[in-house]
Amino acid sequence: MKILFVSPDPRPERWITPLQAALPDAELIAWQDDMPPQQADYALVWQPPAVLFENEPGLKAIFNLGAGVDALLKLPALPEALPIYRLEDAGMSAQMAEYLVHQIAEITRAMPVYRQQQQDKHWKMQAPCRRKDWPIGLLGLGQIGNKAAQALALLEYPVASWTRKAKTFPGVESFSGQDALASFLGRTRILINTLPLTAETQGILNQSLLSQLQPQSVLINVGRGQHLNEDDLLAALDEGQLLHAVLDVFEQEPLPETHPFWSHPQITLTPHISAPTLREETIRQIAEKLQALQAGESISGQVDRQRGY
Amino acid sequence: MKILFVSPDPRPERWITPLQAALPDAELIAWQDDMPPQQADYALVWQPPAVLFENEPGLKAIFNLGAGVDALLKLPALPEALPIYRLEDAGMSAQMAEYLVHQIAEITRAMPVYRQQQQDKHWKMQAPCRRKDWPIGLLGLGQIGNKAAQALALLEYPVASWTRKAKTFPGVESFSGQDALASFLGRTRILINTLPLTAETQGILNQSLLSQLQPQSVLINVGRGQHLNEDDLLAALDEGQLLHAVLDVFEQEPLPETHPFWSHPQITLTPHISAPTLREETIRQIAEKLQALQAGESISGQVDRQRGY
Ligand SMILES: NC(=O)c1ccc[n+]([C@@H]2O[C@H](COP(=O)([O-])OP(=O)(O)OC[C@H]3O[C@@H](n4cnc5c(N)ncnc54)[C@H](OP(=O)(O)O)[C@@H]3O)[C@@H](O)[C@H]2O)c1
Ligand SMILES: NC(=O)c1ccc[n+]([C@@H]2O[C@H](COP(=O)([O-])OP(=O)(O)OC[C@H]3O[C@@H](n4cnc5c(N)ncnc54)[C@H](OP(=O)(O)O)[C@@H]3O)[C@@H](O)[C@H]2O)c1
Repeated sequence: MKILFVSPDPRPERWITPLQAALPDAELIAWQDDMPPQQADYALVWQPPAVLFENEPGLKAIFNLGAGVDALLKLPALPEALPIYRLEDAGMSAQMAEYLVHQIAEITRAMPVYRQQQQDKHWKMQAPCRRKDWPIGLLGLGQIGNKAAQALALLEYPVASWTRKAKTFPGVESFSGQDALASFLGRTRILINTLPLTAETQGILNQSLLSQLQPQSVLINVGRGQHLNEDDLLAALDEGQLLHAVLDVFEQEPLPETHPFWSHPQITLTPHISAPTLREETIRQIAEKLQALQAGESISGQVDRQRGY
Repeated sequence: MKILFVSPDPRPERWITPLQAALPDAELIAWQDDMPPQQADYALVWQPPAVLFENEPGLKAIFNLGAGVDALLKLPALPEALPIYRLEDAGMSAQMAEYLVHQIAEITRAMPVYRQQQQDKHWKMQAPCRRKDWPIGLLGLGQIGNKAAQALALLEYPVASWTRKAKTFPGVESFSGQDALASFLGRTRILINTLPLTAETQGILNQSLLSQLQPQSVLINVGRGQHLNEDDLLAALDEGQLLHAVLDVFEQEPLPETHPFWSHPQITLTPHISAPTLREETIRQIAEKLQALQAGESISGQVDRQRGY
């Protein structure tokens, strides 16, 4: 089988070499913008150019090197019947859970205050965190939200999730569907967005949603920048409805230097690093799936083009 | 029953009122330094004065308002046969696990770098954290270490524990006894101390121990200040054996303003807040235990005076 590796990674050999080792019978090719068609069977992609699909009409499936397929599905040349497999966890959910616990402790445990106190050589205990003051709500409870929910429930926070279909998840109160959104938001003080970006979820983090949260609430967006209405967020912070926002994803990435988020005192931002694709785990997962496909087995993680995730 | 509340808390009524509500038949008295003997049956104590035990020879048991009884056991007037019950978890282990995940993510996820980048309006992903580069070792796996071990294993770190007796704990490699200490240290890069302070464990965090850790290791001390040889720590940091230390407890608390730890660039310090006593949970636990004792039942959490914890 012929496999094209199509990614902006400046060092594709870091992928090609271990993939070749895992799949000795495969022919692995790093995509180059000016290369002739390769008659590839599979493509492993992150932000591929649209021309890929014109050059390679023989593709049997593509593997996305991340969890979110929103940008991929928007490519005009993408054949409708081409199966797309997204990355499933592959170490990302543990990274995400860790990132979220860290950012939540920053706020509920007053960690920036303690850093300042160390600088000032000042010894003072801040009021301890009472868990009941910080009910957490997760928008989305899929591969990525899953482990975060588990970790936060273990840490004894009240945790709820909002999804399309109802869930049974130990320690997590389940809300599902549009009708349940208002009651989910009304009990939530720390809102974490882990939704995929689809026609239904685009712009969901807007004024109307933010105004339904508990007073002095916190928004953590680790989904996609297009989930958030940036002006509505700034207004909610300025009006005191929101205490703080933690943002890892943005409408435009890298975030432009002139953007007001950078220096807003109530915004913590990170450059899309909450749950990075981990090379070893990703290669292992994709190699196993390719072997299964070759052996005629079915594999998990296929994107539902209708739903958009 | 007559219960004395003996604590430096400046607002004892925050304890007395809910305790009285939970134990309507009890007589609750806030200790005052100049008060006459009260013929109390029980005392709830945090850092009590030695005179308590002279004044109150009729005590049937005392309840410590924290997990560590090291200071209490050193009081010369403490009757040898008086049963002492320590606080068991009561919400502390979740706070501790959260604190530890936070501090570990600071280091393994380069969080201070991302804070600086935000200040500089600089968008740059740092290398992701490979879990295998950061094996974590817990000294002690009791009420306090327990939940941290669970959380860190959930986050897919390699986790091991060192205890007196061997443990079976899912996702945690068990080492026990003096003979196993060297191999435990040799596989550990992030060492977390949650031991109780006893004759056996005092000064355990010394040059010899630190030198057996993996290169570029991290020490997190949330046990007691007397576990650590402060000069040995400074030397290990200066010599490059240790990358960083996170300290929540100190030989002298509050840490004196002139202490070199405050401004050491490789030390993060917090004022003994990693797992504070939570009032509501503590009152609930002690009220339940007192009711059980009154009903002639036996209760858990009694300190073994011989072992010292
Ligand atoms: N910042 C980062 O570094 C990073 C890293 C990885 C992923 N992500 C983002 O996280 C997203 C989720 O990834 P995942 O692997 O968890 O996806 P997933 O396994 O497909 O889970 C998606 C979750 O969202 C819910 N959902 C989708 N549409 C919904 C709607 N209209 N209303 C209510 N709930 C809806 C789903 O509900 P059902 O369970 O009912 O279907 C499911 O629980 C990705 O698409 C990506 O944007 C970000
Ligand atoms: N910084 C804070 O805010 C804070 C808060 C709470 C507690 N603490 C500290 O944490 C300590 C532990 O509390 P805990 O509730 O977890 O106590 P615990 O339930 O009694 O557990 C103590 C653990 O230490 C192990 N241990 C004791 N002596 C040992 C020795 N000589 N060699 C090897 N292992 C030994 C025990 O091993 P076995 O299981 O084999 O007996 C056990 O796993 C407290 O004493 C206190 O100093 C600090």
